[in-house]
Amino acid sequence: MSCVVAVVGATGVVGREMLRTLEQRNFPATEVRALASPRSAGRRIPFRGGEIEVQPVSPEAFEGVRFALFSAGAAASREIGPVAASKGAVVIDNSSAWRMDPEVPLVVPEVNMAAAKHRPRGIIANPNCSTIQMVVALKPLHDAAKITHVVVSTYQATSGKGHAAMEELIAQTTEVGAGKGATVKVFPGQIVGNLLMDWKPGPDDYSEEELKMVNETRKIMGDANMGVSPTTVRVPVITSHSESVHVQFARPMFAEEAKRLLEHAPGVVLVSSAYAPGNHPQPIHVAGTDAVYVGRVRNDLAVKGAINMWIVADNLRKGAALNAVQIAEELLKTEPAA
Amino acid sequence: MSCVVAVVGATGVVGREMLRTLEQRNFPATEVRALASPRSAGRRIPFRGGEIEVQPVSPEAFEGVRFALFSAGAAASREIGPVAASKGAVVIDNSSAWRMDPEVPLVVPEVNMAAAKHRPRGIIANPNCSTIQMVVALKPLHDAAKITHVVVSTYQATSGKGHAAMEELIAQTTEVGAGKGATVKVFPGQIVGNLLMDWKPGPDDYSEEELKMVNETRKIMGDANMGVSPTTVRVPVITSHSESVHVQFARPMFAEEAKRLLEHAPGVVLVSSAYAPGNHPQPIHVAGTDAVYVGRVRNDLAVKGAINMWIVADNLRKGAALNAVQIAEELLKTEPAA
Repeated sequence: MSCVVAVVGATGVVGREMLRTLEQRNFPATEVRALASPRSAGRRIPFRGGEIEVQPVSPEAFEGVRFALFSAGAAASREIGPVAASKGAVVIDNSSAWRMDPEVPLVVPEVNMAAAKHRPRGIIANPNCSTIQMVVALKPLHDAAKITHVVVSTYQATSGKGHAAMEELIAQTTEVGAGKGATVKVFPGQIVGNLLMDWKPGPDDYSEEELKMVNETRKIMGDANMGVSPTTVRVPVITSHSESVHVQFARPMFAEEAKRLLEHAPGVVLVSSAYAPGNHPQPIHVAGTDAVYVGRVRNDLAVKGAINMWIVADNLRKGAALNAVQIAEELLKTEPAA
Repeated sequence: MSCVVAVVGATGVVGREMLRTLEQRNFPATEVRALASPRSAGRRIPFRGGEIEVQPVSPEAFEGVRFALFSAGAAASREIGPVAASKGAVVIDNSSAWRMDPEVPLVVPEVNMAAAKHRPRGIIANPNCSTIQMVVALKPLHDAAKITHVVVSTYQATSGKGHAAMEELIAQTTEVGAGKGATVKVFPGQIVGNLLMDWKPGPDDYSEEELKMVNETRKIMGDANMGVSPTTVRVPVITSHSESVHVQFARPMFAEEAKRLLEHAPGVVLVSSAYAPGNHPQPIHVAGTDAVYVGRVRNDLAVKGAINMWIVADNLRKGAALNAVQIAEELLKTEPAA
């Protein structure tokens, strides 16, 4: 049976990760099309031992496509997503364009795969990277004790801002490491040896990234009343977002129970041993892996029955490409007919 | 009138900053003695246009000393602090040795200078760096609306772990910037491009650093019931600690009032303009300055009448050396006779 997959934005940092993920997981695609803007067309990308040539995006490029994985920015998704859907493709969109549309399910397979069934626009949205890893860790706790309030501070990697941002950290590391000044192009200031909040402003003096963590978390968890207090921060790390999370519940939840739940939670790897220096999920160890790593699960010292934890995941994989591919994999199980 | 100052641990990263701070603030010392372990004795340190020679620590070295500023580690403070005090010096100790001793005041001049008057051991403790900057920002809010709960996640610089740790980040930046592997000696893993929790373990699966933030904050603020939920994290930054802080109060406190209070708070520089990319206190801008910078003061989205803010300060200056020198300056005003 034919299963054609198109990756839109195939030359971007997430698009490339989507192709790698399809390959590494032996996704049963009979054909993979790498699509991008005309500017990138003709480039060749290694895939399954050979190469695929990047094609320009066009309505015709979606003929016969079963899954169209989009990671080409919100403007492209708004314009071309519906075109791909009209050709019969299931659009799985990594941009922010459709996430809060009530007719578009926002899906993390470990949390709310059932929501993907109802997709009147033919589009499924992939959540924001910082949200995905948090909800994977929160879900088993919410099911057990109903989360009322989450305070989250993030430590987000440069690759979450795209290829040029990641390259800027690498270039600045070389410059500063050689005793030179840092050249700033993509970020609103030096990122090596520094911390930045570089996201666009949103309402109420929050950044758009912070508001995504509030709104997307509520939509995915299916709980419009869940309180989320976010602060998002960029750190000089190449890949893997980390999050310091304080969680309160409708009934007391202690660390022992939380660890037991997390130990068996899908997609989670728990670091359950006692704290010791360095004995916690670290971005450089997590980069390139698929799981959401949770460590430092401990009873809160101020609120009895609240917990704190430390969540790290590869923002390009579980935070983007992998989550999109997993959605397609799950749909193949439940909707086998093309 | 004579005012002899001794700096104990003068060759360490904080000791050197103490000497620089005494010089830059024209502290009215008639003599400054640089003391250190015998191993460092004989080294010469630039001071006030000349040089001072490092002397080995001995009981005699404290003869005639008015203020003994200690930053030589907890063991040295425990052993030698009382000796200096017995010679009549006011010991201002930057280590953790005496901070929680009920007979030792723990002082941040902007918060609780009055506590310094009562010092039965002749010792005043300088709080932990991450605590100092937080309490300077919390104090005006606590006075106005009584803080009930603080959730704090830190982004702490390598210089907070001492000179060798700071040098390790610099060396790793050069190594990784040149495409080599990072040499790890001081930290429990690579720090460049990574995040680490490198503090010693304490009870209840918390790090000692996290527990300091709980216990010292309560002691300085004089409120044993204040809830503090800390997560402390080391980031690849040379100098300046940053903190993401969520604060709840006994009565509603909104961002507008909090900003008005912070604008006039001693030791605070408020970044009050609306959020825009990069428009927040940044470690590289704050390093080398004296104030506690507060930005991103905004209403919480989950708890009405709670606020969130972002606090950055130079951990070597306000977080250590400057706070100690300020204590001495204030004592000179209120206790002018030697």
